[in-house]
Amino acid sequence: MLSFENDYIAGAHPEILKRLAETNLEPLSGYGTDPYCASAREKIRAACQTKDADVYFLVGGTQTNSVVISSMLRSYDGVLCADTGHINTHEAGAIEYTGHKVLPLPQKQGKISPNDLERYLSDFYGDENHEHMVFPGMVYISHPTEYGTLYTKDELTSLSELCRAYHIPLYMDGARLGYGLAGSGTDVSLGDIARLCDVFYIGGTKVGALCGEAVVFPKGNAPAHFLTIAKQHGALLAKGRLLGIQFDVLFTDDLYLQISKNAIQAAETLKSIIKEKGYPFYLESPTNQQFILLENSRLEKLKKEVAFSFWDKADENHTIVRFATSWSTTSDDLKKLREIL
Amino acid sequence: MLSFENDYIAGAHPEILKRLAETNLEPLSGYGTDPYCASAREKIRAACQTKDADVYFLVGGTQTNSVVISSMLRSYDGVLCADTGHINTHEAGAIEYTGHKVLPLPQKQGKISPNDLERYLSDFYGDENHEHMVFPGMVYISHPTEYGTLYTKDELTSLSELCRAYHIPLYMDGARLGYGLAGSGTDVSLGDIARLCDVFYIGGTKVGALCGEAVVFPKGNAPAHFLTIAKQHGALLAKGRLLGIQFDVLFTDDLYLQISKNAIQAAETLKSIIKEKGYPFYLESPTNQQFILLENSRLEKLKKEVAFSFWDKADENHTIVRFATSWSTTSDDLKKLREIL
Amino acid sequence: MLSFENDYIAGAHPEILKRLAETNLEPLSGYGTDPYCASAREKIRAACQTKDADVYFLVGGTQTNSVVISSMLRSYDGVLCADTGHINTHEAGAIEYTGHKVLPLPQKQGKISPNDLERYLSDFYGDENHEHMVFPGMVYISHPTEYGTLYTKDELTSLSELCRAYHIPLYMDGARLGYGLAGSGTDVSLGDIARLCDVFYIGGTKVGALCGEAVVFPKGNAPAHFLTIAKQHGALLAKGRLLGIQFDVLFTDDLYLQISKNAIQAAETLKSIIKEKGYPFYLESPTNQQFILLENSRLEKLKKEVAFSFWDKADENHTIVRFATSWSTTSDDLKKLREIL
Amino acid sequence: MLSFENDYIAGAHPEILKRLAETNLEPLSGYGTDPYCASAREKIRAACQTKDADVYFLVGGTQTNSVVISSMLRSYDGVLCADTGHINTHEAGAIEYTGHKVLPLPQKQGKISPNDLERYLSDFYGDENHEHMVFPGMVYISHPTEYGTLYTKDELTSLSELCRAYHIPLYMDGARLGYGLAGSGTDVSLGDIARLCDVFYIGGTKVGALCGEAVVFPKGNAPAHFLTIAKQHGALLAKGRLLGIQFDVLFTDDLYLQISKNAIQAAETLKSIIKEKGYPFYLESPTNQQFILLENSRLEKLKKEVAFSFWDKADENHTIVRFATSWSTTSDDLKKLREIL
Repeated sequence: MLSFENDYIAGAHPEILKRLAETNLEPLSGYGTDPYCASAREKIRAACQTKDADVYFLVGGTQTNSVVISSMLRSYDGVLCADTGHINTHEAGAIEYTGHKVLPLPQKQGKISPNDLERYLSDFYGDENHEHMVFPGMVYISHPTEYGTLYTKDELTSLSELCRAYHIPLYMDGARLGYGLAGSGTDVSLGDIARLCDVFYIGGTKVGALCGEAVVFPKGNAPAHFLTIAKQHGALLAKGRLLGIQFDVLFTDDLYLQISKNAIQAAETLKSIIKEKGYPFYLESPTNQQFILLENSRLEKLKKEVAFSFWDKADENHTIVRFATSWSTTSDDLKKLREIL
Repeated sequence: MLSFENDYIAGAHPEILKRLAETNLEPLSGYGTDPYCASAREKIRAACQTKDADVYFLVGGTQTNSVVISSMLRSYDGVLCADTGHINTHEAGAIEYTGHKVLPLPQKQGKISPNDLERYLSDFYGDENHEHMVFPGMVYISHPTEYGTLYTKDELTSLSELCRAYHIPLYMDGARLGYGLAGSGTDVSLGDIARLCDVFYIGGTKVGALCGEAVVFPKGNAPAHFLTIAKQHGALLAKGRLLGIQFDVLFTDDLYLQISKNAIQAAETLKSIIKEKGYPFYLESPTNQQFILLENSRLEKLKKEVAFSFWDKADENHTIVRFATSWSTTSDDLKKLREIL
Repeated sequence: MLSFENDYIAGAHPEILKRLAETNLEPLSGYGTDPYCASAREKIRAACQTKDADVYFLVGGTQTNSVVISSMLRSYDGVLCADTGHINTHEAGAIEYTGHKVLPLPQKQGKISPNDLERYLSDFYGDENHEHMVFPGMVYISHPTEYGTLYTKDELTSLSELCRAYHIPLYMDGARLGYGLAGSGTDVSLGDIARLCDVFYIGGTKVGALCGEAVVFPKGNAPAHFLTIAKQHGALLAKGRLLGIQFDVLFTDDLYLQISKNAIQAAETLKSIIKEKGYPFYLESPTNQQFILLENSRLEKLKKEVAFSFWDKADENHTIVRFATSWSTTSDDLKKLREIL
Repeated sequence: MLSFENDYIAGAHPEILKRLAETNLEPLSGYGTDPYCASAREKIRAACQTKDADVYFLVGGTQTNSVVISSMLRSYDGVLCADTGHINTHEAGAIEYTGHKVLPLPQKQGKISPNDLERYLSDFYGDENHEHMVFPGMVYISHPTEYGTLYTKDELTSLSELCRAYHIPLYMDGARLGYGLAGSGTDVSLGDIARLCDVFYIGGTKVGALCGEAVVFPKGNAPAHFLTIAKQHGALLAKGRLLGIQFDVLFTDDLYLQISKNAIQAAETLKSIIKEKGYPFYLESPTNQQFILLENSRLEKLKKEVAFSFWDKADENHTIVRFATSWSTTSDDLKKLREIL
């Protein structure tokens, strides 16, 4: 069946499978010490315009959030994020499982504002009882957000300056980073992110890989013994080659950005189809996720012909649904969708 | 360079890569709900001769131990194991990270004895202060052990009976289970394991897969919401297909056992080469890991031509080293090794 | 200096100190196994009108919340509470430290409504993705709340019925339970609480004891090995006598309720003084905590003569402050306060 | 019944109860900010001959070990200790509950040797796979040990030097520190301990207090926000006065050492009675715990007249039992014991 359900419905970019096959029987050392991991790290450093970055490869998004966040917080710290942030809603409490509170901030379309962050931080330190409270020890943002929206360079700069003023790291969850970098009208580059964030990850799972996320500490500021910390979380892959080869391919000849652009172009076409067919948007995003308001009766019929995601109830008769494009969406998929809609 | 360093130096069995490529662009649902996972589960149930088993796919060994053990222990429980057990030595404290003590038992060649287990359990419950101590809440064994040795069916039966008498689960770490099932002279089958253990995992990473371990609860006795528990640990793979397809291939036409037999035949050849060349064994195992005593001067020369693992110091002048064969060891590898030795 | 800062400014009720002295040199067994603990348990069971209750003595409020909540949740569960709940705001993340998320609900004057709870629970189980989310595993309420307000018997009954329908325990934090039971116009008795809650604690620290909280599982439904769990949290007192003797005194001749009534009478006098002096209430509670709006200039002068708690900023020029009475407030204290105000 | 069961059978030194009563109705601020805590801190600094020490008061021994150890370890660290150490045996896994492994070392009469420690540390850092293992992040010793034995100043110096060479803190569990300082023939003073250890606690519960342990960071080296960390563990007492007043009394006019000497003198008398009566010692310690071998038939009769602790089975017919004296043991108790034995 035709599917716009999410951006991880397909396997890997064919170039990745080809490279896995070519290198398959080479005996390689484990745990990320092989030459493909080394090569991928170098290419990522170049793409981030930072030669000192520490780069680690982990397997999935929730795992990455759990390992990175817990490795950078002190025991009495929590992590600030939009109350719609993935870590606050759809990770089964993985952050709390590591002993840390998620401290929700108000959001608009998935984004937190520098003003709200500043108020939280100044109120916290202004409260004479704050030693009895959870300290704000990190700011987590997702880019694109869970609603497909993007921070501007100005917003990122303000968040970054606030974090530095309060000596807490700014962490960007880049599960869909490629779709953010290729997003319509964005002024934020990978170099900007490396300059403004203290840690971020470049998502592979949703952008062409079978699995894998590349964690970047742009100033060589990885916590000591990060490998041991990953192992302790069960997050260290024995055959690190599986991750190294994938990212090596994705960061060769700009493939990561190229396939991301495919998703954005598909999303633009999707938006025009939706407008053409007269469906109202709940939220029209610059990236690969589009949120539409559907009448419930229409929804029931539609879901027999195309897969998409249920997002939230809007009112008695309407539902918010999400259509996602990806690196693997074809013009044929979009043609079929136009016919169905 | 020639490598007998471990059993995860190569990628995946070629049949797996082929199948990944064939299915690559099919849109599939995530998190283990796709038809390949379903098919793999059915084949594993058949191989285990248990139609009610719950089967879950996780990514790696430490992760599997962490998720399974913590999901089955009550907060005040610890897990008993050989003091040489992987969870006690080489998992960076992953079990303790989940809040549980590893309770070490004496071992011989990596195995615990039913007598030692019985003594521990009866002493514990006989101690009037045991409410101030960590409760023994599970027995962990590895099969093959970290020393390549195997439990006999009699030993397994005794351990199983003890665990049932004390109402604690028996858990088998099968990181190298294929090499155990194919081991020289073993009388333990997969059906026996499913009958005698309360939970075990069938290792993929070391037996032909790129990654992946299949957890089996043979009596349909998985803890409630095991998927949520895995997610909370960051252990739930979005593209579950990557694991499902691999195990589906491994459990088609008995491939898992066939490639395991290759490792055992290679190990038998390896043993005969070592004997022929006059190197003393530290421990001659029935599976794919062989432990040899090397003079330090010999070791230094050898390691320039072939990769192997340093295991432990034996005395001032000798070192225990490990040579491992695997599903991917070729007769050519062995021929070269004979020449080098 | 005169102090209405909180309800733990004084030591213990003199009768407690007297009894500690009388029994001081008796050799007693430890960890809650002494006859004074046994006697206190019996008296508490009688006061709760439940002969099967399990009763445990712990040292302080945050500790009690941490031990009780974590002992009753499964690993994938969180605890629902008012977003102003003590566990969500002023316990330094003690609940999250045990691995569990606090799931905040909207509140009015510190109370959650049965409607909001029902909506949360039905939405959760209605969401097809709920296996990726934190399960609601307990409802936490405080009575009196952090704002001094009280649930009615009807409200408690509705919450209790909802919890039972969804098979999750209802837990009452009774840090100030005495002041709730003695509250103006309440229709909720200790027997009602024992009937409607699955677990609650009777606060000692804020109601006449040096330290100590009595946890009651009214249906004999304490988690197995609760003593071991407490020990594991560092919450098991060696000299259990210190807690047993205090609760034995507090539950002899209705002392707990009698001294609580003193706080309520003092609070009523306090309210009339505040009205008489024309200070506006932020919130006029039926218990021992009163919240007043003060002009900032007035606040600065006042705090030189009497201690009270800063609660929150109201606007540029006003602050919300709290005055608390307690079992130890004297009519002389109130007389002095009238003069100062 | 006559009791030599342990050193926490009695309440508090009468001087403590007197002082609690005298100060009872003074309104004092909470959480250790009152003047009695401040005074106690000053007196402890003086006794330790270190004017910069950070001093915190916690409630009990297991709690103190849990808070101190977890506050000083990095997530991937474990704590080294004698395999008979209290944290390894009788604390219900409280250390592991905070996520850290206890790394057992061999012991003699409860003590670890500098040689064994050095071997462990050099082997660990010499192992090329140590990034997959738990790092040794602290050394825990008890003084007196669980067997009543004491480290010499030379031994402590060696352990201290090793710890400093490897940059890991040396932590002394002083649950019975008074009995160590007053022990027969010891050359270790409180000043030595403050000089050689990085953190230690002065036990109150077993040496004259109702409850309470004073944690000392002799170089002002408490972890940042230690109060918040304690709160997060449920270890911060609201009425800090209860702990401050007790330690203020114990460190006035050398009371702590004086009452400890009483226990040692009683132990010396006890030893002479045991010798006189011909009972064999399992271990004759210089402090307040004495370990005796009893025939099982004799044990059964004896325990009807005097309480003591069962320690371990020696053989089929003999049991190791412990007799403990304390600050509250009287000459009358000893006279009665002589008659019974």
